[in-house]
Amino acid sequence: MTGLRGYSVPRTPGGRASLVPAPPWHYVGDFLVIEYWADPDAVAAVLPAGLEPFAEDPGRAAALFVDWQSCSEGGGELVDPSRSQYKEFFLVVNATMDGEHVTTCPFIWVDRDFALARGWVQGFPKKLGSIWITRTFGADCLADPGLQPGATFGGTCAAYERRLAEGTVTLERVSEHGPTHNDPPLVNVRHFPRLEAGRHDEPAVHELVRARSRDRVASPVWEGSATLELHGAPHEEHTTLAPTRLGRGFRFTFAYTVDDLETVRQL
Amino acid sequence: MTGLRGYSVPRTPGGRASLVPAPPWHYVGDFLVIEYWADPDAVAAVLPAGLEPFAEDPGRAAALFVDWQSCSEGGGELVDPSRSQYKEFFLVVNATMDGEHVTTCPFIWVDRDFALARGWVQGFPKKLGSIWITRTFGADCLADPGLQPGATFGGTCAAYERRLAEGTVTLERVSEHGPTHNDPPLVNVRHFPRLEAGRHDEPAVHELVRARSRDRVASPVWEGSATLELHGAPHEEHTTLAPTRLGRGFRFTFAYTVDDLETVRQL
Amino acid sequence: MTGLRGYSVPRTPGGRASLVPAPPWHYVGDFLVIEYWADPDAVAAVLPAGLEPFAEDPGRAAALFVDWQSCSEGGGELVDPSRSQYKEFFLVVNATMDGEHVTTCPFIWVDRDFALARGWVQGFPKKLGSIWITRTFGADCLADPGLQPGATFGGTCAAYERRLAEGTVTLERVSEHGPTHNDPPLVNVRHFPRLEAGRHDEPAVHELVRARSRDRVASPVWEGSATLELHGAPHEEHTTLAPTRLGRGFRFTFAYTVDDLETVRQL
Amino acid sequence: MTGLRGYSVPRTPGGRASLVPAPPWHYVGDFLVIEYWADPDAVAAVLPAGLEPFAEDPGRAAALFVDWQSCSEGGGELVDPSRSQYKEFFLVVNATMDGEHVTTCPFIWVDRDFALARGWVQGFPKKLGSIWITRTFGADCLADPGLQPGATFGGTCAAYERRLAEGTVTLERVSEHGPTHNDPPLVNVRHFPRLEAGRHDEPAVHELVRARSRDRVASPVWEGSATLELHGAPHEEHTTLAPTRLGRGFRFTFAYTVDDLETVRQL
Repeated sequence: MTGLRGYSVPRTPGGRASLVPAPPWHYVGDFLVIEYWADPDAVAAVLPAGLEPFAEDPGRAAALFVDWQSCSEGGGELVDPSRSQYKEFFLVVNATMDGEHVTTCPFIWVDRDFALARGWVQGFPKKLGSIWITRTFGADCLADPGLQPGATFGGTCAAYERRLAEGTVTLERVSEHGPTHNDPPLVNVRHFPRLEAGRHDEPAVHELVRARSRDRVASPVWEGSATLELHGAPHEEHTTLAPTRLGRGFRFTFAYTVDDLETVRQL
Repeated sequence: MTGLRGYSVPRTPGGRASLVPAPPWHYVGDFLVIEYWADPDAVAAVLPAGLEPFAEDPGRAAALFVDWQSCSEGGGELVDPSRSQYKEFFLVVNATMDGEHVTTCPFIWVDRDFALARGWVQGFPKKLGSIWITRTFGADCLADPGLQPGATFGGTCAAYERRLAEGTVTLERVSEHGPTHNDPPLVNVRHFPRLEAGRHDEPAVHELVRARSRDRVASPVWEGSATLELHGAPHEEHTTLAPTRLGRGFRFTFAYTVDDLETVRQL
Repeated sequence: MTGLRGYSVPRTPGGRASLVPAPPWHYVGDFLVIEYWADPDAVAAVLPAGLEPFAEDPGRAAALFVDWQSCSEGGGELVDPSRSQYKEFFLVVNATMDGEHVTTCPFIWVDRDFALARGWVQGFPKKLGSIWITRTFGADCLADPGLQPGATFGGTCAAYERRLAEGTVTLERVSEHGPTHNDPPLVNVRHFPRLEAGRHDEPAVHELVRARSRDRVASPVWEGSATLELHGAPHEEHTTLAPTRLGRGFRFTFAYTVDDLETVRQL
Repeated sequence: MTGLRGYSVPRTPGGRASLVPAPPWHYVGDFLVIEYWADPDAVAAVLPAGLEPFAEDPGRAAALFVDWQSCSEGGGELVDPSRSQYKEFFLVVNATMDGEHVTTCPFIWVDRDFALARGWVQGFPKKLGSIWITRTFGADCLADPGLQPGATFGGTCAAYERRLAEGTVTLERVSEHGPTHNDPPLVNVRHFPRLEAGRHDEPAVHELVRARSRDRVASPVWEGSATLELHGAPHEEHTTLAPTRLGRGFRFTFAYTVDDLETVRQL
């Protein structure tokens, strides 16, 4: 018998080496959310089986730049911060599942391996990228945009030597409601390939999953005008979801905890 | 119905965005192999279910630093080389499976995301790291050790801000046989976690797999003396496999193609 | 005649390509400051000509981890944040110059090229490294230590594949005075080598300089207990300044502007 | 008096911590050279004082991708290869100096700090970037283009999250003569800024220098057809030198040693 332990590979006698430590995972992050609309056909084309286009507002989408800090139970990663901090950029599009309004994430880039693998486990189709997001330090000075009318926050995403996305949010006021394009429950696809010859098209894991979280905390939300550009690359397809119309931008801090995931159906 | 295509996430309408392109995968790399012996109990402790200690030579192991270039069919990644090149460091230990002499890889670090995910698919427990390996350019000059007696090649591996391994091979002569510690068939564990509450200990994929490859090509092998040090970190356990005795070191170029994997048993 | 413009190389017709844009430079950053004492002889040994040991408190030193955002006039870098954000770790030691109490920075690592070159211009002996610092997001949640008694902030620095420093500050209370070990005026050495044969020992620039800054803004300062470890590497000497005694740790936000430097003497 | 030693900062008691070790510097590298012509006015506009346009063939330029390994005397960096390997991309343009045919380098990106600083000392206006170059391993396999007719080698350069250049060379045959656009003596500008208020326009070092090298060794040169694209960024100006006409491409290995530099004139 074997005594290998750990939530993810590498599994080891001591169980301390897993790239992804065992849940729960506690997160806090600064968000830039840019609401927009993409071509409805392009949105429909990225929906996994089980999701239908959101007919009420076709093409509804959002782009999110998030500057994260996370840890597992006990919080040990927080004082060795290369194991707790990461940044990511992702798109969500709106859809319906059995008549319920949901969102799904077709494209996402993240800058650290533990977050990439933890994302795969949750159904986020993560690839590595380089993401940068303007920060505020709460100081009244020229290098800090501050949380105030007129302050502009930018986000950029690059991968494999090419810029893939850039956006800005210029604050106007504290928002009454916060963003809505990314608000419905998130339904993603967990997928893990098979390599056996002749069965490359039969993934070992292929299931629709619904995110669950708890202990959600949000700061007041600032809103304002926004810009968003998506740039192409030979090995990327996110530009099919480029904005045809821009909505509002938002900036806030959000925290939550994840230790569960609902499998909705096998694909 | 959905038209999402691709071997790995993200799966897309065009099928071009997968982090891991579809097999076959063609590889070529420069290898530094350091044969050694670790504490037999420590080696036994990292064996997955289904493997038994290699009683004939307890503790037999090898450390490998490899400087890779790879591509999928058509070779498009070769001219966009950030998508084809990567370096990795890994350990293999010897074992038996149903009486057959095999090896298994308990620890491996790689410096690019496509190689990390492609490794997970094959059962390599990859994490990201930073790996550096001395090169030869075939030039007779002071900055090139050359393939000649007395030339020293070094390899280093770091992850999460700490050096984890360093080794050297000082060439003596062309080898008659090449390395043997890493020669037996490689048997790894494919593993993909589950996040559903209450079932964190029931991975979605957990199976013993045996590597298959074809079109293997090797250069002449140089051999010589070797050094190897493994350095610890709070979130690593590879130092349990630190050398108790060093064997020979080897340096060569090797190429092969992978598009199959045999599942040996479910774990 | 030439029309090349720019504050630093590369100088170009448009003057926009300089790695270091023209001053003024506006900075804001989150600081972790760890006060300590090193071996007085080791401190004396790193003082440049013109500085004398600080006899009043021999060995007085501080370690600083700083998470920066900066921009030049107009603030354009703030919305393209890969050009404005960086992290650094440095040591300062206390000394006297013509009887005045000063500090000097013998070792510093920074994670971005524009900050490295901008540091050289100011007399900071910067090398590239990888620096990570625990953040607070002002959220009441498990992933955010918060500015509160018992919260621990960590900093780490690595370069060339090795961890060089790690420290922590565990907050106790708002400080009455803030840190003092790094408070005296900073006197550094501007140095730029010469390559002409036979004159490698005659740098083209070699002068003692005194930092000047303006528009300084500081947040309230938290203080608490601290830890600090310096780790060696074959090509580093900062461990000669390892702590023999630890003082207090501090955490605060600080902003200032730089566009001047006083040359004190030629070396 | 002080006992600080070292060729560059940081200068230390032991003299081992300098970012740039003392000359001589020994180099070996694999080169991709793409000969081309840019707009002659744009080439004239990037010439420093002291250089005149090359009237014989206006606009003559070359783009070079180089995969380097280097070391200082004794070669210690070779077995700690993160301190010896780097890649760079640069442009050279042709000019005359006092009637002599020369070249100068207006733009260059490199991926390691030691090479950046060592370049500044020699008058190369280096910034950090990410450079990738197709390799050959001398293996007859699909992942290795090989040195053979029809083999394509690619180079890419990115900085600050944007791709700045990409080029290819498709080999046809061993060249009779090798590249000529980058062959004339290299004349660069050494420049180090001043920060004293009111004197920002008076650099501390500003001189025309002529490269010197010795112990030059070159492999046979392959040549073939080439492509080259330069991509813009808000903080870059190299696209003024975009190709108006392409010449031939070349691939070879080259080694040399540098420990001298001739100052031609003060600017």
